[in-house]
Amino acid sequence: MTEKKKLIAPKLPRGFEDRLPAEIAAVDEMVRKIRTVYERYGFDPVETPLFEYTETLGKFLPDTDRPNAGVFSLQDDDESWLSLRYDLTAPLARHFAEHFNDLPKPYRSYRAGYVFRNEKPGPGRFRQFMQFDADTVGAAGPEADAEMCMMMADTMDALGLAGKYVVKVSNRKVWDGAFNLLGVSVDQRMTVLRAIDKFDRLGLDGVTELLGEGRTDESGDRTAGARLDKASIGHIVDLLTPKSLDGWAAGEAASSTPSRDQLFALERSAIYGVDPTFTAGVDELKAMSSLYGSAGFADGRIVIDPSVVRGLEYYTGPVFEIELTFKVQNEKGQDVVFGSVGGGGRYDGLVSRFRSEPVPATGFSIGVSRLANALKLTGNLGAEEPIGPVVVLVMDKEQTARYQEITSRLRKAGIRAEMFMGNTKNFGKQVAYADKRNSPAVIIEGSQEREQGIVQIKDLIAGKEAAKAISDNAEWKAERPGQFECADADIVEKISALPAVRAYLDRTK
Amino acid sequence: MTEKKKLIAPKLPRGFEDRLPAEIAAVDEMVRKIRTVYERYGFDPVETPLFEYTETLGKFLPDTDRPNAGVFSLQDDDESWLSLRYDLTAPLARHFAEHFNDLPKPYRSYRAGYVFRNEKPGPGRFRQFMQFDADTVGAAGPEADAEMCMMMADTMDALGLAGKYVVKVSNRKVWDGAFNLLGVSVDQRMTVLRAIDKFDRLGLDGVTELLGEGRTDESGDRTAGARLDKASIGHIVDLLTPKSLDGWAAGEAASSTPSRDQLFALERSAIYGVDPTFTAGVDELKAMSSLYGSAGFADGRIVIDPSVVRGLEYYTGPVFEIELTFKVQNEKGQDVVFGSVGGGGRYDGLVSRFRSEPVPATGFSIGVSRLANALKLTGNLGAEEPIGPVVVLVMDKEQTARYQEITSRLRKAGIRAEMFMGNTKNFGKQVAYADKRNSPAVIIEGSQEREQGIVQIKDLIAGKEAAKAISDNAEWKAERPGQFECADADIVEKISALPAVRAYLDRTK
Repeated sequence: MTEKKKLIAPKLPRGFEDRLPAEIAAVDEMVRKIRTVYERYGFDPVETPLFEYTETLGKFLPDTDRPNAGVFSLQDDDESWLSLRYDLTAPLARHFAEHFNDLPKPYRSYRAGYVFRNEKPGPGRFRQFMQFDADTVGAAGPEADAEMCMMMADTMDALGLAGKYVVKVSNRKVWDGAFNLLGVSVDQRMTVLRAIDKFDRLGLDGVTELLGEGRTDESGDRTAGARLDKASIGHIVDLLTPKSLDGWAAGEAASSTPSRDQLFALERSAIYGVDPTFTAGVDELKAMSSLYGSAGFADGRIVIDPSVVRGLEYYTGPVFEIELTFKVQNEKGQDVVFGSVGGGGRYDGLVSRFRSEPVPATGFSIGVSRLANALKLTGNLGAEEPIGPVVVLVMDKEQTARYQEITSRLRKAGIRAEMFMGNTKNFGKQVAYADKRNSPAVIIEGSQEREQGIVQIKDLIAGKEAAKAISDNAEWKAERPGQFECADADIVEKISALPAVRAYLDRTK
Repeated sequence: MTEKKKLIAPKLPRGFEDRLPAEIAAVDEMVRKIRTVYERYGFDPVETPLFEYTETLGKFLPDTDRPNAGVFSLQDDDESWLSLRYDLTAPLARHFAEHFNDLPKPYRSYRAGYVFRNEKPGPGRFRQFMQFDADTVGAAGPEADAEMCMMMADTMDALGLAGKYVVKVSNRKVWDGAFNLLGVSVDQRMTVLRAIDKFDRLGLDGVTELLGEGRTDESGDRTAGARLDKASIGHIVDLLTPKSLDGWAAGEAASSTPSRDQLFALERSAIYGVDPTFTAGVDELKAMSSLYGSAGFADGRIVIDPSVVRGLEYYTGPVFEIELTFKVQNEKGQDVVFGSVGGGGRYDGLVSRFRSEPVPATGFSIGVSRLANALKLTGNLGAEEPIGPVVVLVMDKEQTARYQEITSRLRKAGIRAEMFMGNTKNFGKQVAYADKRNSPAVIIEGSQEREQGIVQIKDLIAGKEAAKAISDNAEWKAERPGQFECADADIVEKISALPAVRAYLDRTK
């Protein structure tokens, strides 16, 4: 009696996924294009490891012994807590502070890498995903913020999304100034900002509910409100949808500033010139607008829009977001705009956690998977299956050294090639394997061919084309479409001449 | 009185490191070259996430509540244990088992990625490092193992290491057969194999000690021995350094098989034909030798050498290792061979942990950092600092929109460029920043130049060359080497003509 083996179920933990060849190739190509833009802007690559001290990341330990609220954390053998990074900004702040004396200032760097969120996974929400960030540390002026916005726009253009996106810019100071005047307490401010952040998704009614008593969504989940009074809510709604915009848009929309840009309205608001924080925020937006305008980006690619606030607490000034404006269907079948694929802002306090002097910084982050998904939807992602290898069939197990020699000859010529290594002698199954691998051709050498010093080449792509025109099975067998004889010495030449192989050789040479 | 802020120390946990631009560029280039070889061999990229269920990875929980022996593990909120992968093989086995029905068989795939070891870090020993693996799952024959060895050799050749490496091949069955005859118990076998594994580093005397009573190293650390009897130790030493080799080498070394290849000795050993496991192991090595020989690799690039055993427990047949043979100095200043940069072997049992049928598999892994370090030592790594951006100096804070416009014009032409964004107006400090960034040139526009519609271009590279020939400070000021005037309309053309910029444009077009 044999003991029955206990098998382990082969599966991934929730919220993690494997990446397959077509996706890897497409994301690699996308990352390459993005990197080219960042380098042109003067940024250099710098990468940090996946672990940092928990304290470095700025998540403070709750009263439990495992600080796993949103981050993956574990205790090292010297009792210190380590966490997997949840974004690429906090580690960059640590890197800059650690190497402060050696680094050029301003310090421009970029990085793509995995980040981790210890959250409940859902459709399209993963616990490991890739971000692509760029940051300028040590530059205090709006030039650096304007540059971030231009770089985001140039990146979208480089990816083929021209006309399908808008970079929206706002400023936390605009809201802080408004909150000062309205008497919104410091404790309430993040709640209010998170409500404003939902303007795109929930519209004016939803935001109004969230600013007041709270909101119950369709599934019955209740979100607590900020409990502002009616007058304050009215003022916030005014800023979100400036009344003066309509008149202005009608009058001046034909000029270089497109109608969606709300800088004009902000300048004419009753708070401008009254609250100094609000005024400083609007002035920074004016300076940014002048800078990206002079570089030709005020053509609708970058617009001022106060509804952008960004969720992260560490932003201190300008904030920005890339929104893809084309329509997609949501899970309910409704048409919605694709929405945000990245954003960022100024975070002047983050590096100062490590150093006594103030260190201004600004940057942005792209969600790589989400952007790749957008490119797939718009046909801008080279997502086709890569061409497979030429397969040398094993017609006779005693001849593997000979088949290996043919395979090696093809590889030496730069051609993707392999000898069949599965456990079947069956000709049809070997060809089926080649088909599954998307092979351009198989090479066949039986004893007859060997005696004559030739091989058969079966062009699988031409074969499939020809097969469409042949309906009769007998005719098929007689014609053997796509198959031809070739002298042993000509194998490399004949295989190289196949269009798919030619294309591969051209691409990799 | 202001409260003093408590600062966080900006540092990384032990065993983790940042990666800087030159290293990133060099490793990227290396990975690209390796990938080209693997694709030519018919392998496609597939990646798994960094987390797996602890059970999937095959580390079984010890009696403690945190299974952190060598791996980073933590408990998920559903009580299951997750671990960061410690290699890329176990996750690949899970991926293949999970998608068994959909994948082509044999299944060829490759991946580069970070792996984690929760161990004591030391010089050159990190807790996060990158491996680059290739595996063939579902191929039982020695063809697949021979192919791995050829691919390792072709990879080393592609990286410029021709003549500086050897791929050594052995077979666990050879040792298992010997152990059968010598009566080495199953419990002792990993201890004996680990002793043999140290042959390269400790020599015959060291291994003899480890096979017997044990060994005390120079630092006084004691390693327990396998406590084999004298006769058994003698037989193992015979296999490690076959006596018959000397006579054979003298007679036949001039033929295609180089003298270091010990297959001949293994075949003539007294155990061959006696113990079936040993015999099967040698026969597999013969088949491999015939296959890589027919493809031209038996020229010293791949050799049979029984001393290779590999440390991992899951190998079941052929094992192989890439050894770099050039000399380097160790920490004591002694000349030693650089040694292993990767290896692998057949692991027929790993996928079967998930499935009832046997699933043969073979593969190998390259240590990316270690190989990059070897390439740096041999001058095969393009480790030079990449060319920096052209810097448009800010001579007048009121003119940033104008400087931004020049910067954007350069970028549109594909040139790396940036406007200076630091907090200094000082000309010298701005030029020093450009120097630190390895900039090819700075662009200067003061009020005088602006009136004339020109800019000054300072070629920093030509300037440094010229400066070497000028000793006199007055002469320097008069000549301003490398600096020239340029009409506003010609900026792009003149900057593009600088050799370093030209080289960048050629490389990125």
